[in-house]
Amino acid sequence: MIGRAVERRRQPPTTLLGPGDDAAVVRAADGRVAVSADMLVEGRHFRLDWSTPEQVGRKAVAQNGADIAAMGGRPTAFLVSLGCPPDTPVSVASGISDGIGLAAEALDAGVVGGDLVQSAAVVVSVTVLGDLEGRAPVLRSGARAGDVVAVAGTLGHSAAGLAFLSTAHAGTDPSSAPLIDAHRVPSPPYTAGVDAARAGAHAMTDISDGLVADLRHIAEASEVRIRIDRRLFGGDPLLEAAGEVLHIDPWEWILTGGEDHALVATFAPETELPAGWTVIGDVVSGEDAPGVLVDGRDWAASGGWQSFDAG
Amino acid sequence: MIGRAVERRRQPPTTLLGPGDDAAVVRAADGRVAVSADMLVEGRHFRLDWSTPEQVGRKAVAQNGADIAAMGGRPTAFLVSLGCPPDTPVSVASGISDGIGLAAEALDAGVVGGDLVQSAAVVVSVTVLGDLEGRAPVLRSGARAGDVVAVAGTLGHSAAGLAFLSTAHAGTDPSSAPLIDAHRVPSPPYTAGVDAARAGAHAMTDISDGLVADLRHIAEASEVRIRIDRRLFGGDPLLEAAGEVLHIDPWEWILTGGEDHALVATFAPETELPAGWTVIGDVVSGEDAPGVLVDGRDWAASGGWQSFDAG
Repeated sequence: MIGRAVERRRQPPTTLLGPGDDAAVVRAADGRVAVSADMLVEGRHFRLDWSTPEQVGRKAVAQNGADIAAMGGRPTAFLVSLGCPPDTPVSVASGISDGIGLAAEALDAGVVGGDLVQSAAVVVSVTVLGDLEGRAPVLRSGARAGDVVAVAGTLGHSAAGLAFLSTAHAGTDPSSAPLIDAHRVPSPPYTAGVDAARAGAHAMTDISDGLVADLRHIAEASEVRIRIDRRLFGGDPLLEAAGEVLHIDPWEWILTGGEDHALVATFAPETELPAGWTVIGDVVSGEDAPGVLVDGRDWAASGGWQSFDAG
Repeated sequence: MIGRAVERRRQPPTTLLGPGDDAAVVRAADGRVAVSADMLVEGRHFRLDWSTPEQVGRKAVAQNGADIAAMGGRPTAFLVSLGCPPDTPVSVASGISDGIGLAAEALDAGVVGGDLVQSAAVVVSVTVLGDLEGRAPVLRSGARAGDVVAVAGTLGHSAAGLAFLSTAHAGTDPSSAPLIDAHRVPSPPYTAGVDAARAGAHAMTDISDGLVADLRHIAEASEVRIRIDRRLFGGDPLLEAAGEVLHIDPWEWILTGGEDHALVATFAPETELPAGWTVIGDVVSGEDAPGVLVDGRDWAASGGWQSFDAG
């Protein structure tokens, strides 16, 4: 049933052969394909009492699509293997499949294959293919001393939404709804990733573990120190309101909340940043002690906040 | 730890960027990529008391690699997401990962990404990318009346091995060891798939559900009837010996046993078949009632043998 739903779905021009045969065939116009895979497990990466099946599917697409955006590419195709316990309502599997299909369609990407099997808990395994459009991939290892550090997309919303879901406050405060929505279905700034690559970004990654934790990946891969300055961030009234309700410092969410799949990149200082990018710091040499400083404080020891999604 | 093991692995020239960044980059020389995904769940698709973790990994590669061979392509890269319960010994995860890595290496394919998460049972989710080398993919839908039907690879060994594992006879009969090995790690005839595509095969698939069941996929997709003739098959002393021990007609295994990942294809009658291919029947028109005849008997109603692997 799911297989037929997938086969009926409209395919973009990059899908040269859709699902239904032993393999699909996807265009790789520049002779290369960017590819990444993630596995989401019920109870660890999503909860079906907190998200609809369709939201789970949409989140799986966002999470994987952001990995392609973080290389400067565009997602072209998704493959989804779904494991479900035998007593799973059909609506769960079809809802996840629909969410994936609709989110992929919004990206003009195909859903070209996958599998449906029985498993002990609901498991969603997604592979994404992407097109780098002839550009070099933007790696984590390209940051250089003198670069500016900039972000695109929202920070901390998913973590704040999770904080609402984890407490009795969900639904009682007007700031909660958009934050909970952001936790259920993140909105990676896909276009900003392509724009950054075109503008010559030196390094880029998506924020899945938290801003500081993911910047540390860039710092370590590039052997640099990254300094971020909180004064450069714009205020976020939603997070401030949520912080008051939940008695949490919103900077906790901004600096260490994962799963928004915002993008963070470094650029040569003379670069005219594309729309949607905000400078939050700079890069200094640091091959002896790569790490991340926030307002001059060393965050290396922190380890970041362990989200529901960790692991 | 697994991630590091994967990152250390030698990569073939098709891996333009290996694992470790947000996405990997794989060469797609002819501007297309063939892609397929499968999910294997402990207790349904493999048993860790019947197979070593390394064998599970090798089988996952064979099962996915065969899907690319069945399109006439060569596997270039694998992505593997692994879900393991928290009490899983590290040796299980690293063994599966090693098996995948070694089997991929034998195919000159990379292991370019994946994920490692906690899950309720061991789940192995594999995506394979493949290179069609400029050729059209060989579909299930291309069989034409007048074609010959031919197979490459072994038939029935995996099913016979499973029959030994499922009874008390395992290890007591000299025929059992190679058949059990074939069940644990199938050996798809990868080169035969490429050779068939080069020879102009009209239709092809790999035998994962059983010869008759998979031929039925070709018959239905091509709207033809396929006639196979048991007199055209060579004898298989191993299966005959096993059949005597287990009191099972070996034809049951040959016609309906899945998981060997042999290839079956149809060719224009004048085609000089490549090495390793054996004619077992022919194709006749049948748009009104596509199906498979064995020695003139209609197998359409049978439904095939439901293997341990089914579902």
